[in-house]
Amino acid sequence: MDAINGSKLVAVGHRPAFAQWLGTTNDVTRTFLAAGGRPGLINMAGGLLEPSTYPVEQLAAIARDVIQRYPSDVLGYGPGEGLPELRDAIARRFSSPALRLARANVLITSGGMQGLDLIGKVLLEDGDLVAGQFPTYLGAIDAWRSRSPTFRNLEFDAPGFDAVAALEGAQFAYTVPNFSNPTGKLVDIRMRQGLVDAAHQTGTWLIEDDPYGTLHYDGEPVSRIIELSAQARPGEGYTGPVVYMGTVSKEIAPGLRIGWVIAAPEMIEALTMAKLGSDMCTSGVTQRIALKALEDGLIEQIQPMVLNIYRRRRDALCAAMREHLDEWLDWEVPVGGMFVWAVARDPGLDTDRVLDHAMAAGVCITPSSVFDATGLYKRAIRIIFTFNDEARLAEGVKRLALALETMQAQRS
Amino acid sequence: MDAINGSKLVAVGHRPAFAQWLGTTNDVTRTFLAAGGRPGLINMAGGLLEPSTYPVEQLAAIARDVIQRYPSDVLGYGPGEGLPELRDAIARRFSSPALRLARANVLITSGGMQGLDLIGKVLLEDGDLVAGQFPTYLGAIDAWRSRSPTFRNLEFDAPGFDAVAALEGAQFAYTVPNFSNPTGKLVDIRMRQGLVDAAHQTGTWLIEDDPYGTLHYDGEPVSRIIELSAQARPGEGYTGPVVYMGTVSKEIAPGLRIGWVIAAPEMIEALTMAKLGSDMCTSGVTQRIALKALEDGLIEQIQPMVLNIYRRRRDALCAAMREHLDEWLDWEVPVGGMFVWAVARDPGLDTDRVLDHAMAAGVCITPSSVFDATGLYKRAIRIIFTFNDEARLAEGVKRLALALETMQAQRS
Repeated sequence: MDAINGSKLVAVGHRPAFAQWLGTTNDVTRTFLAAGGRPGLINMAGGLLEPSTYPVEQLAAIARDVIQRYPSDVLGYGPGEGLPELRDAIARRFSSPALRLARANVLITSGGMQGLDLIGKVLLEDGDLVAGQFPTYLGAIDAWRSRSPTFRNLEFDAPGFDAVAALEGAQFAYTVPNFSNPTGKLVDIRMRQGLVDAAHQTGTWLIEDDPYGTLHYDGEPVSRIIELSAQARPGEGYTGPVVYMGTVSKEIAPGLRIGWVIAAPEMIEALTMAKLGSDMCTSGVTQRIALKALEDGLIEQIQPMVLNIYRRRRDALCAAMREHLDEWLDWEVPVGGMFVWAVARDPGLDTDRVLDHAMAAGVCITPSSVFDATGLYKRAIRIIFTFNDEARLAEGVKRLALALETMQAQRS
Repeated sequence: MDAINGSKLVAVGHRPAFAQWLGTTNDVTRTFLAAGGRPGLINMAGGLLEPSTYPVEQLAAIARDVIQRYPSDVLGYGPGEGLPELRDAIARRFSSPALRLARANVLITSGGMQGLDLIGKVLLEDGDLVAGQFPTYLGAIDAWRSRSPTFRNLEFDAPGFDAVAALEGAQFAYTVPNFSNPTGKLVDIRMRQGLVDAAHQTGTWLIEDDPYGTLHYDGEPVSRIIELSAQARPGEGYTGPVVYMGTVSKEIAPGLRIGWVIAAPEMIEALTMAKLGSDMCTSGVTQRIALKALEDGLIEQIQPMVLNIYRRRRDALCAAMREHLDEWLDWEVPVGGMFVWAVARDPGLDTDRVLDHAMAAGVCITPSSVFDATGLYKRAIRIIFTFNDEARLAEGVKRLALALETMQAQRS
């Protein structure tokens, strides 16, 4: 990324300037990108999964089968809204006695990320207000960056948090209620209910981004926010303010790039207009593969194995952290997802600098600044436990402890 | 599309407004969408291909093979820039003695359409100037609509056309030089050279959108604009102002949703930043399928058959038009592509109204207003010849003649 110099993209010669938002991307991202290929580095930063969990043989057979059986469907152009049968399958999967979904409530997207991009396209003018759970998913900040929104941080646990005041005046509110990226936090039922009530009262759209919902290791699942919205105002066909986003990325495989948005039909129509101008339609090949995988129950087949692997890795990471990092960091064991969020006990610790030392020690973690639209929150780190096995997680933690010791020695 | 009422998207209750650009979409688009499912209608409007040209068995075998052989690669997350091996293959395919391309010159996109969306994201602030070959591809207008650009129409054939003056001050110029959508026009070598010289002189980026290049039925291909740019300023690695876009949609199958952008590395980097915030990465499954199809020479295998079918259909359409439409319309036989562009002999004919009468007569064509950012150019129609066989093309033309006769009878 040589041409992106500091925070300013340099144009060659007398070329027209690139759009200003390209100068606002977080430099830390470049450190990760550069880290990807370093041999020996233990990567606990990238949101990666364990490849052995992918149902390879089944997906290979399904891929051949759907191309042979539905050639015009999968190899031609498809509708912008997505394959009708896949929209129906998603509507059935998320329907309940209160939440009665039809095809018109569902848009298929090219991965979960595209839903965030399309939301920005249909709801944001330059500088509009977004109310976002803080800290926020980096991909969401990136998706909306080109509209330079004003971010209002939603800190659900802050004393006296007032959901109505927090949502008032925002084009939309954004939350990852299940095992939030980056904090791993499970938003409790009381807060979910409070957000729904506030969205109904203020009219603000409420984005429920749920890529990690099935990665649940302990305890019972909490009702989806869109389900609570439908329960508050039951009726035929969902027309409420919640926009629910899901994906097969953590349930089957991210490489399919298949996600979905469930929302009121007027929102699905607007998002479809934006999608037609973004990538026309999602691949029929990957849509048909995802549909057959859902119909064959692949998710249910692999889920016990997936949850076992990730639960063991979470426990191994947290055990190693207790042994080596307790002096510096404070964290909670997440009940699901992919992340442990660790906050420095010393409020003066700069975790952007921790990253530099960690990289020197051979481990990569994510500093909190990238999850803050202002880039100023530098007290925490995110550690991924899904990608590395128990031994590498333990070794990574030791390297991180070494990095923190080195930093402390240099300061004193 | 019930909630999109006329040109204004109506919000339910006291919801935040949708972004203003959603109110600027062309209503004619809705007529096509509604037309899709009508039984008996002859669709000569949608940019569709003949499904029997897709190499189904080969693609089915390739799909199974690449998932089995590269499971982590195709089922996991991939780099935003695209699969390195596919980037290399595209660089090799388009390299020449003058145009020396490397991986850094190539971005893989989720279909050709995504390249247009990304160009808008990295080059346009609200209201910026775009110089576009007129009439212009509808998808390009749609891709940039959310930035409300100012369009300067480039009419290459107008007397005294001055390429430097036409490009000056624009963020970029946009052309479809091979069998342009919608006019089917082949931009000649003299004009291509003029555009390159003007882009070099003014610094303006020059977008060469080339989805139809291989659909060439008569005569010799004309040098690509990016090739002319490299010949004017040869050197190691392309760093010039031309941004070339291609796709496998018309060469193998659109359902793969695989396209590419070839440009200076600084532009590829900027587009990659935009892609990361749009859909993170393109599916590894469809990228690997496209790579193997390229390596196996599938394009070369099917091309003679594809060209034969489409050449015959073009000839059948033009023969029927000569027989039935000569009284009303004027057109040239295109040497490639998918479209015949027919201009009304009567300057007062409103082709938006022709569409209404055509639909009543059981045929769908595309009126020129959708290819004009202002929506005011209503004198021409676009007819697609790739989707229907010879008999249906002839029947469609008869229905169109009937529609024109009915219109004339009503006027007199």
